[in-house]
Amino acid sequence: MAVYTHVPAEDMAQFLTRYATGPLISAKGIAEGVENSNYLVETESLTSGTDRFILTLYEKRVDEADLPFFMDLLDHLGARGCRVPRFIADRDGVKLQQLGGRPACLIEFLSGISVTEPTPAQSAAAGRALGELHIAAQGFPAERRNTLDLAGWHDLAGRCGDGLDSIAPGLGARVEQELAWLDVHWPRDLDRSVIHADLFPDNVLMHGDEVTGLIDFYFSCTDIRAYDLAITHGAWCFAHDGSHYYADRGAALVGGYVQTHGLSDAERAAFPALCRGAALRFLLTRAYDWINTPPDAMVTRKDPLAYRRRLDFYAQAHPAELLGA
Amino acid sequence: MAVYTHVPAEDMAQFLTRYATGPLISAKGIAEGVENSNYLVETESLTSGTDRFILTLYEKRVDEADLPFFMDLLDHLGARGCRVPRFIADRDGVKLQQLGGRPACLIEFLSGISVTEPTPAQSAAAGRALGELHIAAQGFPAERRNTLDLAGWHDLAGRCGDGLDSIAPGLGARVEQELAWLDVHWPRDLDRSVIHADLFPDNVLMHGDEVTGLIDFYFSCTDIRAYDLAITHGAWCFAHDGSHYYADRGAALVGGYVQTHGLSDAERAAFPALCRGAALRFLLTRAYDWINTPPDAMVTRKDPLAYRRRLDFYAQAHPAELLGA
Repeated sequence: MAVYTHVPAEDMAQFLTRYATGPLISAKGIAEGVENSNYLVETESLTSGTDRFILTLYEKRVDEADLPFFMDLLDHLGARGCRVPRFIADRDGVKLQQLGGRPACLIEFLSGISVTEPTPAQSAAAGRALGELHIAAQGFPAERRNTLDLAGWHDLAGRCGDGLDSIAPGLGARVEQELAWLDVHWPRDLDRSVIHADLFPDNVLMHGDEVTGLIDFYFSCTDIRAYDLAITHGAWCFAHDGSHYYADRGAALVGGYVQTHGLSDAERAAFPALCRGAALRFLLTRAYDWINTPPDAMVTRKDPLAYRRRLDFYAQAHPAELLGA
Repeated sequence: MAVYTHVPAEDMAQFLTRYATGPLISAKGIAEGVENSNYLVETESLTSGTDRFILTLYEKRVDEADLPFFMDLLDHLGARGCRVPRFIADRDGVKLQQLGGRPACLIEFLSGISVTEPTPAQSAAAGRALGELHIAAQGFPAERRNTLDLAGWHDLAGRCGDGLDSIAPGLGARVEQELAWLDVHWPRDLDRSVIHADLFPDNVLMHGDEVTGLIDFYFSCTDIRAYDLAITHGAWCFAHDGSHYYADRGAALVGGYVQTHGLSDAERAAFPALCRGAALRFLLTRAYDWINTPPDAMVTRKDPLAYRRRLDFYAQAHPAELLGA
């Protein structure tokens, strides 16, 4: 991750005069987020001290047409007590701007750090926060299609083609086999909701064992609600390379989610299939990026096989192992 | 610029317990500085609110053996009223640490933004700040050799070799001609001092027209004092591509410097030669990086010819044009 669009400080200071913030006093390009350019900006506070914001310029990966969905969602969630970063409106009420030739938004800054090796206590907190998110999301009227759904996985697998076997011999056949299994077993009747769809530890800010913010909603969409928990399970409960499953984290994550939201019997029964789908989704997007990123590019390619290992684990796991009960 | 060494938040939080700061509450990798990894970290303040610091991990470009020189210099300058970022000592008085397998230091955060197109008023402020820096530097006992001196330019030109002509036909001959001229005309008897040696607008933090900080002292060394003003002149007073000299910025910069420090007749007389040397220094380091960076690397290569244009301007300029009087 990097800053793709450089904004001169003078332009940034001028841009901020649209908002009811104080004048700009610091701006640092930060190295995070999906493929956007992000600045951590500081303004003189109108009360005392300073205020901080994230200024995001949207690069190729985020479709500008989706931004109103994300904005409305974060307003809806924030108004219901979720700690999510709200988009800031300018003096005329406008949130979606242009800067440096890009769509750009000023966004609330949330403090907190992202853990790399979650403890069970932190996994439980993430589960509780996800449950609270799903409760707060109830009644959100807008919908956004998940393009990375079962049909999307078929499409991605086709676009990876023979490249899968260049990553690891037999990977193409394994993907085909899994797609065939999911075509039969993917649940059709579970509750749907707005989901985060990318709740990796990177996207959860914490102070100690307390969640202080959920960020990076740029994959959020409408899909099976419990699939969000399955994605989070794959992201939080394994060694990074997928070689080990931490049952204590899994039990804590699901326990936390049950504590705030609950999980129906149908959702429990379908959980292994949901986890297999989640693992395949990240296997495929990573494989696609792997095949299409030159090895000498200065972008870190994430190993698709870390998700093949998760997939293989999920395919043979007993549901109680995943759910912790 | 990017974050080269990723430090897990848990390790960063643990690292900060060595210091008399509050606990870590935020850490963002920032995209700036010479080739180091930099994090903007925020800790709970022991009094009220939060404190901010820069956490720097030194990558290949900075020699660990030079760090004590930089630390002592910033202490010396800070104690004399210069707004420079001080290195923070841990509870045992230690400033130079190890983190993520790298030498690492916690450094004071200074607010302010770096302008891209300095106004004359901002150029004057930079000149005044440089003059104050040179006054504060008096009596600093340590020395550090400037490896990018006249001998160093000869060496660099040799290492660029035929690559110079691959950047632009005739560039090799132009460099040879300039080196021959500087061998004869480079001043030998001017006052020497610790100099910043890289005071580009990037390295000057400002609020409006006021300087709030001078940063990035990793090229600071002992050399001809007025050479520092010449480097700053080349960095502040031209269109980025070197195609235009802004005489108003030049007059303001030199005027500001004279206001706080002063410039002797000998320094004025030598100023064109100092500016030619400064332009050649950046021409050569940029050319070397250009030749040794693959065109498809995701690092922005800075155009060496932007400094050939400055060099050609300086070679024919009247001293009064440069000094503004």
